[in-house]
Amino acid sequence: MAVRHYTLDFSLSTAVDSASTVSGLMSIFHEQELTETVHDTNGHGYFATFVGKNGRVAILRVHSHGLVTIDLQCYEEDNIAQLDNLLNALEKKLKVLLNGNITRIKKLPAIVRGANVDRYWPTADGRLIEYDIDRVVYEEDSAYQNIKILHSQQYGNILVLDGDVNLAESDFAYTQAITGNGKENYAGKEVLILGGGDGGILAELAKQKPKMITMVEISFCSKVIDGCRMYMRKTCGNILDNLKGDCYQVSFFTEALNTSFLIGRNDKTTYVGQNERRIREEKGNSANLTEALSLYEEQLEKLSCPVGFCKEVVCVPSYLEQWVFYTAWKK
Amino acid sequence: MAVRHYTLDFSLSTAVDSASTVSGLMSIFHEQELTETVHDTNGHGYFATFVGKNGRVAILRVHSHGLVTIDLQCYEEDNIAQLDNLLNALEKKLKVLLNGNITRIKKLPAIVRGANVDRYWPTADGRLIEYDIDRVVYEEDSAYQNIKILHSQQYGNILVLDGDVNLAESDFAYTQAITGNGKENYAGKEVLILGGGDGGILAELAKQKPKMITMVEISFCSKVIDGCRMYMRKTCGNILDNLKGDCYQVSFFTEALNTSFLIGRNDKTTYVGQNERRIREEKGNSANLTEALSLYEEQLEKLSCPVGFCKEVVCVPSYLEQWVFYTAWKK
Repeated sequence: MAVRHYTLDFSLSTAVDSASTVSGLMSIFHEQELTETVHDTNGHGYFATFVGKNGRVAILRVHSHGLVTIDLQCYEEDNIAQLDNLLNALEKKLKVLLNGNITRIKKLPAIVRGANVDRYWPTADGRLIEYDIDRVVYEEDSAYQNIKILHSQQYGNILVLDGDVNLAESDFAYTQAITGNGKENYAGKEVLILGGGDGGILAELAKQKPKMITMVEISFCSKVIDGCRMYMRKTCGNILDNLKGDCYQVSFFTEALNTSFLIGRNDKTTYVGQNERRIREEKGNSANLTEALSLYEEQLEKLSCPVGFCKEVVCVPSYLEQWVFYTAWKK
Repeated sequence: MAVRHYTLDFSLSTAVDSASTVSGLMSIFHEQELTETVHDTNGHGYFATFVGKNGRVAILRVHSHGLVTIDLQCYEEDNIAQLDNLLNALEKKLKVLLNGNITRIKKLPAIVRGANVDRYWPTADGRLIEYDIDRVVYEEDSAYQNIKILHSQQYGNILVLDGDVNLAESDFAYTQAITGNGKENYAGKEVLILGGGDGGILAELAKQKPKMITMVEISFCSKVIDGCRMYMRKTCGNILDNLKGDCYQVSFFTEALNTSFLIGRNDKTTYVGQNERRIREEKGNSANLTEALSLYEEQLEKLSCPVGFCKEVVCVPSYLEQWVFYTAWKK
């Protein structure tokens, strides 16, 4: 039984007399059978809590510097229309009471807390994001991470590893970017994919007539592969149905291989092999994490084997933030 | 002076004894000099409010069906590290107290309420989204709407009309989609753009050697054009510096024109002219608003002049939701 948490905030150009504001609102709270307790704030404005039927709770604060905040919590199965009415009545009344003094009215979409299906997955740069997730289609814990596949109406199934959005079925732009946006020729080449458990890169490159693709996954990622084979088929197609094909093999260990391309896929580690001619690398980096990006570039410049690199900012649909992809090459 | 609002929620597999949970947390609240008031909830679990120094307020609820919610509000200039410590101490203690019974721990990024620069702009399908907006670069009210241009680190400047994200400098994908993703040939053609005050479509099509582009904006949108000319130059280039050029003119009125292409750009209205051969239309539709999309398609099918249409789902970087673009043509 989730809690719906509504907020309604009035920003003001000047401080207001809390007594008149509060008394103007009381009749609305009382009509809804909410009983108030006024708290001593040691001079930090007015603060009252209201308790109503069915577990409803409201908080009213008139901050002394010119901000009125209202919080309203109710249970998911409460009469939502009634709560909307209460919030609208409070907004309407406050517009009258604070007339001429309002710089902004802000009513956020209700935050749903403790729901069976969690819709809030922050971006890599720490912003609050609500996804349109309506169900969990797969959930497993491996020895090292929590693996979820969640369904979104607009993005299809989304792979979420340890709470980080990893890839959605909508995200072909990701696969395109990490394979070089058509600028690389994989025909007849040997390719090493490090990570890539969702199978997207493998499925795409297998179409491009490579000599051999070796995908190396850490063994604890087999549950990722299992989930993606079943529920991320718009990403991997049928490529994960068999871990070995004419032009590819998936191995669950790590060893150095001499291939033409190396495609790294891991949010935590950088792969640069001295034998590689060309490395496509995705560092799990939000375009906003400029410090992390600089650090990565510093590391590239410090390598014993001199490399050149270029980068590209890409919009991956389900990420809800711009993402930076690097290409590095042996000079 | 904004309020930072933190939330910390523990979802539980079974209901808990609130008395032991609460008494285990009290020492933490008291250490931080927060004074409690316990409220009568008429059988809907435990509910206490805590008031501390500097306007700090905390809310603790132990819901009777197995959910613990904590809210913590402080002022932006408070000692944030201290608040983080408090929240971490509560989380750590609850992990011990509820050990074996926890199905999810959720700590959302703090919501900032009443800030000078508002970062929360919901999607068209009503989800809560925090943007990385750091300053307001332009704000004007016309007779009909509020016009803002806001700066985002990753999207560049963003045009926001009446609280709806309209277009950002990062959103060339929008301009590409509405002009047909390279599938239309505009050379030598007459083009009518309805709306398009940001200048993105105009700037793009002017490069494609059309005979004449007529852009018709409603007169109250001149402040949109003013703002975009100054602050959305990655979108409009220098095209709005002059409202008339060799191959284009911008007019502030509406009249029927016989042109090869008609490009509609308005979230509220549908434009279909009987004289048009090909119409590119963006209905302001989130891919998730399936009802609105169906309604639009029904309208297309009811037109006295029979039209065919196709649609395309596009990822426009700053929209943070998938967007549907229609192309319609006279049969």
